[in-house]
Amino acid sequence: MNAARGIFITFEGGEGSGKSTQAKRLAAQLQSQGFDVVLTREPGGTNEAEKIRALLVDRDGGNWSPLEECLLLFAARAHHVRTLIQPALDAGKAVVCDRFTDSTKAYQGYGLGLSLDKIEVIEREALGDFKPDLTFLLDIPAKDGLARSSKRLSDENSTEDRYENLALGFHEMLRKGFLEMATHEPERFRVIDASLTIDDITAQIQSIAAESLVSV
Amino acid sequence: MNAARGIFITFEGGEGSGKSTQAKRLAAQLQSQGFDVVLTREPGGTNEAEKIRALLVDRDGGNWSPLEECLLLFAARAHHVRTLIQPALDAGKAVVCDRFTDSTKAYQGYGLGLSLDKIEVIEREALGDFKPDLTFLLDIPAKDGLARSSKRLSDENSTEDRYENLALGFHEMLRKGFLEMATHEPERFRVIDASLTIDDITAQIQSIAAESLVSV
Repeated sequence: MNAARGIFITFEGGEGSGKSTQAKRLAAQLQSQGFDVVLTREPGGTNEAEKIRALLVDRDGGNWSPLEECLLLFAARAHHVRTLIQPALDAGKAVVCDRFTDSTKAYQGYGLGLSLDKIEVIEREALGDFKPDLTFLLDIPAKDGLARSSKRLSDENSTEDRYENLALGFHEMLRKGFLEMATHEPERFRVIDASLTIDDITAQIQSIAAESLVSV
Repeated sequence: MNAARGIFITFEGGEGSGKSTQAKRLAAQLQSQGFDVVLTREPGGTNEAEKIRALLVDRDGGNWSPLEECLLLFAARAHHVRTLIQPALDAGKAVVCDRFTDSTKAYQGYGLGLSLDKIEVIEREALGDFKPDLTFLLDIPAKDGLARSSKRLSDENSTEDRYENLALGFHEMLRKGFLEMATHEPERFRVIDASLTIDDITAQIQSIAAESLVSV
């Protein structure tokens, strides 16, 4: 990474792992330390990409196959990188993103059975070799995550529930997939035990992020 | 092609080439001869794919790069093939489609500069080796086609005008691209002089289609 470039940090994990909360907390912390921070999410993050999110995540968005979802996700992601993430990094900012390519590999690949090779060919055509600098994987047993997640969705009266309704076995495959990806790229991934308290998780993440920022 | 399978016929060409009119006429003619016919179009053709069309073709659909458009087009196309075209062919029907993959190569590739290699990699991941059996290329000088097309759009008060507003040079590149593709696949393409009268064009197309249907 060259010194003039910012840092791209992603949060990954299954339903109810606490990613979104921790991404917000890290962004706030970095901001309070004087960094210019962009907090964003996937699918979505730009007006155009949020339209794709609506097709994919909402209950009434349509009946897409995992392959079709993958193509839509990378169209949205390419837009997100080109118009928001890359310009922010070029301006030296820290970009914190709730989910990125690893989620496509976990959900469409490990979870829904789309070939990982196919996903990686599409990834390369869409993004070249663009990757996060640092990825926090919030790991929690699928059952515990789902219990948290269904409480949140019902509290928020959300319709973004398509994955929550799938069987436990699906969510266990996601967890296996995320952990396997973390094993393959140990220099990028940090696996965090997401069954700890929220404050303990925040403290671990902030300490790891601080080290990474020193090394930028 | 095996005898139990239907036939997939596409119409290609630049703006104002008369594709849509001729596709409708061929579909009606085949139907009157007793064929089971599905008339469809791209981008679109299914509820889901029409949502992608709205993002791409309408003026307010967003600011997508040619690469992002290509990913969206193949997501829509994969849905169209999987849920409508392939089942119709499997049931022995004739499918007539106004635009298909060749349009992506012409518009995003030749016209907007996206690498044809990249388009072909994405095509293979999205569709495997699925191709039309027969493609009518309605060829007309770009200037003449645009004159026809702008009259139609203003008569219909249409907002699907994003390409019509591009420079003449863009439309000349499209024409060159379509003709080059036809040269590369002479067994699939039939190039029709679209500056003839509508009825003359219809007669040519029906005679070619009749031969192809005999050979199915």
